[in-house]
Amino acid sequence: MVRTPTRDDKFSFGLWTVGWNAQDQFGSASRPWLDPVESVHKLAELGAAHVTFHDDDVVPFGSDDAERERILGRFKQALADTGITVEMVTTNTFSHPIFKDGAFTSNDRRVRRYGLRKVIRNVDLAAELGADTFVMWGGREGAEYDSAKDLNAAHDRYAEGIDTVAAYIKEKGYGLRIAIEPKPNEPRGDILLPTIGHALALIAKLEHGDIVGLNPETGHEQMAGLNYTQGIAEALWAGKLFHIDLNGQRSIKYDQDLVFGHGDLFSAFATVDLIENGFPSGGPRYDGPRHFDYKPSRTEDFDGVWESAKANMATYLLLKERAQAFRADPEVQEALEASGVLELSQPTLGEGETLADLLADRSAFEDFDVEGVAARGFGFVRLNQLALEHALGAR
Amino acid sequence: MVRTPTRDDKFSFGLWTVGWNAQDQFGSASRPWLDPVESVHKLAELGAAHVTFHDDDVVPFGSDDAERERILGRFKQALADTGITVEMVTTNTFSHPIFKDGAFTSNDRRVRRYGLRKVIRNVDLAAELGADTFVMWGGREGAEYDSAKDLNAAHDRYAEGIDTVAAYIKEKGYGLRIAIEPKPNEPRGDILLPTIGHALALIAKLEHGDIVGLNPETGHEQMAGLNYTQGIAEALWAGKLFHIDLNGQRSIKYDQDLVFGHGDLFSAFATVDLIENGFPSGGPRYDGPRHFDYKPSRTEDFDGVWESAKANMATYLLLKERAQAFRADPEVQEALEASGVLELSQPTLGEGETLADLLADRSAFEDFDVEGVAARGFGFVRLNQLALEHALGAR
Amino acid sequence: MVRTPTRDDKFSFGLWTVGWNAQDQFGSASRPWLDPVESVHKLAELGAAHVTFHDDDVVPFGSDDAERERILGRFKQALADTGITVEMVTTNTFSHPIFKDGAFTSNDRRVRRYGLRKVIRNVDLAAELGADTFVMWGGREGAEYDSAKDLNAAHDRYAEGIDTVAAYIKEKGYGLRIAIEPKPNEPRGDILLPTIGHALALIAKLEHGDIVGLNPETGHEQMAGLNYTQGIAEALWAGKLFHIDLNGQRSIKYDQDLVFGHGDLFSAFATVDLIENGFPSGGPRYDGPRHFDYKPSRTEDFDGVWESAKANMATYLLLKERAQAFRADPEVQEALEASGVLELSQPTLGEGETLADLLADRSAFEDFDVEGVAARGFGFVRLNQLALEHALGAR
Amino acid sequence: MVRTPTRDDKFSFGLWTVGWNAQDQFGSASRPWLDPVESVHKLAELGAAHVTFHDDDVVPFGSDDAERERILGRFKQALADTGITVEMVTTNTFSHPIFKDGAFTSNDRRVRRYGLRKVIRNVDLAAELGADTFVMWGGREGAEYDSAKDLNAAHDRYAEGIDTVAAYIKEKGYGLRIAIEPKPNEPRGDILLPTIGHALALIAKLEHGDIVGLNPETGHEQMAGLNYTQGIAEALWAGKLFHIDLNGQRSIKYDQDLVFGHGDLFSAFATVDLIENGFPSGGPRYDGPRHFDYKPSRTEDFDGVWESAKANMATYLLLKERAQAFRADPEVQEALEASGVLELSQPTLGEGETLADLLADRSAFEDFDVEGVAARGFGFVRLNQLALEHALGAR
Repeated sequence: MVRTPTRDDKFSFGLWTVGWNAQDQFGSASRPWLDPVESVHKLAELGAAHVTFHDDDVVPFGSDDAERERILGRFKQALADTGITVEMVTTNTFSHPIFKDGAFTSNDRRVRRYGLRKVIRNVDLAAELGADTFVMWGGREGAEYDSAKDLNAAHDRYAEGIDTVAAYIKEKGYGLRIAIEPKPNEPRGDILLPTIGHALALIAKLEHGDIVGLNPETGHEQMAGLNYTQGIAEALWAGKLFHIDLNGQRSIKYDQDLVFGHGDLFSAFATVDLIENGFPSGGPRYDGPRHFDYKPSRTEDFDGVWESAKANMATYLLLKERAQAFRADPEVQEALEASGVLELSQPTLGEGETLADLLADRSAFEDFDVEGVAARGFGFVRLNQLALEHALGAR
Repeated sequence: MVRTPTRDDKFSFGLWTVGWNAQDQFGSASRPWLDPVESVHKLAELGAAHVTFHDDDVVPFGSDDAERERILGRFKQALADTGITVEMVTTNTFSHPIFKDGAFTSNDRRVRRYGLRKVIRNVDLAAELGADTFVMWGGREGAEYDSAKDLNAAHDRYAEGIDTVAAYIKEKGYGLRIAIEPKPNEPRGDILLPTIGHALALIAKLEHGDIVGLNPETGHEQMAGLNYTQGIAEALWAGKLFHIDLNGQRSIKYDQDLVFGHGDLFSAFATVDLIENGFPSGGPRYDGPRHFDYKPSRTEDFDGVWESAKANMATYLLLKERAQAFRADPEVQEALEASGVLELSQPTLGEGETLADLLADRSAFEDFDVEGVAARGFGFVRLNQLALEHALGAR
Repeated sequence: MVRTPTRDDKFSFGLWTVGWNAQDQFGSASRPWLDPVESVHKLAELGAAHVTFHDDDVVPFGSDDAERERILGRFKQALADTGITVEMVTTNTFSHPIFKDGAFTSNDRRVRRYGLRKVIRNVDLAAELGADTFVMWGGREGAEYDSAKDLNAAHDRYAEGIDTVAAYIKEKGYGLRIAIEPKPNEPRGDILLPTIGHALALIAKLEHGDIVGLNPETGHEQMAGLNYTQGIAEALWAGKLFHIDLNGQRSIKYDQDLVFGHGDLFSAFATVDLIENGFPSGGPRYDGPRHFDYKPSRTEDFDGVWESAKANMATYLLLKERAQAFRADPEVQEALEASGVLELSQPTLGEGETLADLLADRSAFEDFDVEGVAARGFGFVRLNQLALEHALGAR
Repeated sequence: MVRTPTRDDKFSFGLWTVGWNAQDQFGSASRPWLDPVESVHKLAELGAAHVTFHDDDVVPFGSDDAERERILGRFKQALADTGITVEMVTTNTFSHPIFKDGAFTSNDRRVRRYGLRKVIRNVDLAAELGADTFVMWGGREGAEYDSAKDLNAAHDRYAEGIDTVAAYIKEKGYGLRIAIEPKPNEPRGDILLPTIGHALALIAKLEHGDIVGLNPETGHEQMAGLNYTQGIAEALWAGKLFHIDLNGQRSIKYDQDLVFGHGDLFSAFATVDLIENGFPSGGPRYDGPRHFDYKPSRTEDFDGVWESAKANMATYLLLKERAQAFRADPEVQEALEASGVLELSQPTLGEGETLADLLADRSAFEDFDVEGVAARGFGFVRLNQLALEHALGAR
């Protein structure tokens, strides 16, 4: 049996996850939207520590200031009553038709200006609520057709938008960092910054890139057939893993947003292993919230919604136990050693060795026993089977 | 009818393309490997301007120095006889079993050292032959299993390897730039630097990243379901499109390496349009060779091989004509205008405008006619149909 | 320039295509639903010959009989006024939450019974309107989770449902045939009868399978990475291509429902070539309506909607011209011959030849010149380039 | 810890699996081919019950009759010595260049005749060795280009080839059944009979289809993004699951042939659950060998090869235990009930009920509480979480 989560587990949920009304591309709502106040209370009860939200999740699009204040007051009260905190805030720049061609990169400059205003407004709210992270998912920044977008200008505008917001955060002295959430497609045919890599590449060109990092989502990378754990590893290596969105996806298809672990289970084990145990030879670690961005299936009623919320946490905790046992197993340590996994942290050039030294080292090339070394078995399958049996709790 | 290519078209072919013996994962060779000297002569005859090669394409793996010199002498003579030049050279660090766990990121440090030596040796040759670009495709840098690789150390070693080579190039004063070729998978389950974005992100962290850029391949990006034109656009935007590998791929599957245009034809039109005409509002341009990296199908004999070489160039030239007519058509210009494509180069903030100014501009938010602007039709389908009809030569 | 379509072109549109309100998974409607009467008039004006619809496209779900009669009366008048005919009718068993676990295969028997009733009701309407085809897309027949469905029972129920409807059609003497529309996923994680093949396999087990065939959709097969033309070819071969849904899809991702040709253009050429010209050596032909099932992009207003409707027909007609020229080209005929394409219709055993004869034929095996025959080049790349140049209008 | 396999577990391995020389598309062999006699002994030792092979795995292509007899004699001795039996035999009609355009569907009739002879020769051997199943994987039956194949003729020839072999089996009175192995692509761009469904559809049209069924491979279906368990369920439902090929695949990419469970682990649990426990409400069962068709990774030496062979069996046995516990858990039974999974075996029409009765039943439609029934939560997420926790051994 899996233990009950506590606040120390740092579990966090988007209000749009449990709150979703289950309307999809081919069908109307099968549940009402959930009152955010109710979600906060229920998530607190289940052991979550944080919630996150888009502006429009809490305050309906187009609400005037008075209504907005009233709603936010009620929401803050729920936070105070439960001890739940808001660790991340994000802005919805994709649902309303005003954003049908994007916000920061809409071909219509009026929309770009409006989008920037909507984002800035919400940055203030994020700061006010004490969030650490401000996520940007540019779900409509992209195109269906190659001629529909000047891609050089689009990257210019995207960078301009993010830099403007980052400069504002710095100017205001807010304790916020921006985290970009990549996605390859859906709802646009091709979305800009489609993967972790593309977003990192843009950040590297920003003026205020120091406070801009990533919020990679499991399923989004898997929609491009990419290995999520490898992706967040590169983000960690680049010092840019600011936040994570955990969920489940089964192969390359529409964005499924399943419960974490209900997609590629063994890959989820690797993800938890990295998050909880770090790289085998050390290096940068992720220490932020364990945030779930998923959708309770449209077949479920509210009992099912809460079962699904629990399932995310239970699966995570279970895989965490398994990952810890995996690393603690002496046989695994021996296998990691045998496979050379721990050897990879040794630089290729020795300490103080120059390339000229290597070029002069005949043992490295001229006298190298190519065939002999090539015959080495790496033992990767055995190592993977050890991981699998630990994941399955069979050791 | 398509015109015959000339050297001014800058067409370039890898010797491993026409020379391939057509052995694949499930079958033995259906043709002999072609003598590079013959390939050079034949490609010259067909109108190509350049060839490129892996060390092992010209000099068999493990040849001693004398044999190597003899072979290279013959090869240089063919270049001299035909006027064909070598614009790019690359190193094979993936075929021999010594590299079965990669070269720069093999878990075995001896292999990493050997791989570095093999690469450096070929950099010297590249410089000697007057190449501009040194491509690195790390086809075996990766893993099938998540526990088989310390991913932080792997990125460290990858960066170390590339930086070491780049430093050597600078030290020697070679006129070479390095171009990394990303690929998501095959022959490894997950390859490091799987997409254009991931490679750009690593380059941004290099010490000598100024001479390191990309060599993106059409099919490799499409194997991740990504839009190749969008990918090379981000590389151009980042100042890093150093070289291109054009070919064809039909959807997400094994690496097909079809003739350029024999994969996603309309996407190929967009690629040629970008390469030949640049972005709609200007910006960085690609001016390097039009390099084909494809495989003549295993069903073909040598007649088929040369038909396939011609097909790459013919399709490119045809799409180039069509792309030029597309841009020159006044109706297209009007449609680009109407769709706002040309408006995207205008910064979101006006000249001299600060964010504070925008925040004070009530017309941008408080008084903004959201519904009115949201009703605008962007006309993207019409624009795409214009592109399609130009691609098809129907206008 | 492309000629204007006429009724003889047999173009047909779903009312849900041009009528779609452009609400998607991540955003609200960007256009109002279009009045079916208006769609009929406009499509007639553009040159379409037919419309098709789901019950709920014309008569809102839950309308009472009086309201239904009133609405249908108005609709029939529009048909009469324009000469547009209804060639196909289908039932919406996927939008309302009652069908969230499917209709014919819902785990809830009450829903199965209700679904069957809704379908039968619409069969009567289809017959009354003179339709030839009754399409069944079981978009919700499936599951996200492997344990959620008894898959044997599910296939039993699916077969029961279809057979019941087919028996009803026969009993009533309606001139209708049922066409199943396969889809691999979305909105369910895995949909039953995911491809053309799976649906054919089920039909083969039906009691009334003689009036049950397929309505394959371009994008649905391509979402599984399958070749649409190959798929409809197998359906034709099996005598089961009763209807087609043409549209566009770019690689394996969410269901894009683009304009026909705006996806994989060269594959669309092959599809049109098969539909218009048949197989190279003859065989079964498709002679039904050219039906488009697509969605005008959410970025478009009504002008864009009609441009998109026109684009489907224009692209089809253009590719038809090109395909006809392709087949008429003597060089193509010669190339087909050289590639053995026309030889494949010859049986492997000669006329009157038994297997025993073949076993006794030493020239076929013992004395067969394996290496010599293996050296034959098939010339497929040249043939494909001929097809490509014809598709591009360059010959 | 996992128990050691015994012959009762019916584990079976292709000799081409452990024996593979690890040559792939991008690299040369990293191990020698293994002597089949050694493989038989080693597999016996590890607990396997059966082996399977292609003709060329045991007897090199082109061996004369004397050599063939000698080799087969030695092989039979190894079988006799170990008690290992041959349960399945298959023919290699894809490796030699003679088959570069296929065997049964090659455009070259001489090749078709030769291919048929090669297959028949091996059918005799299969019968002689007492095999139950004769597998046909038509890996080269297909095309890269749409114009390269007359698809109607191709299906005719495919059917002719299979029917001819089936007739021969009947005529000879062999105790063999044919099992077709579908695959969507690789090594051809599009392979005929790409999925379980397409193969079932062809079988339904055969003259001797009664002894023709399927041999579906896990990874092959997953390469098309399809759910393997759902696929074999439809094959079972159709009475056609004659054999299985178990292995692992991670998402849609090249054919990985990983160890069973080293791909989509949770999907493997569902597969084992179906094979071992059958459908929830009963129905057809699979009772054949548990056959592994995988490739030991190219990074491995022979120790790794045998570790990988063990890993297949260990994972299977582990998942079998878990699947048995899953079904035996009363909470699971209750959840299956609550989700309606067990209700699906009830026909939609009651016993003796006609459609006319249903049409007259107002409670089914006119008076049906659509909204009330639509509000039912199916509890699928909870059920899936129960499955996941059982798979992980956490209950």
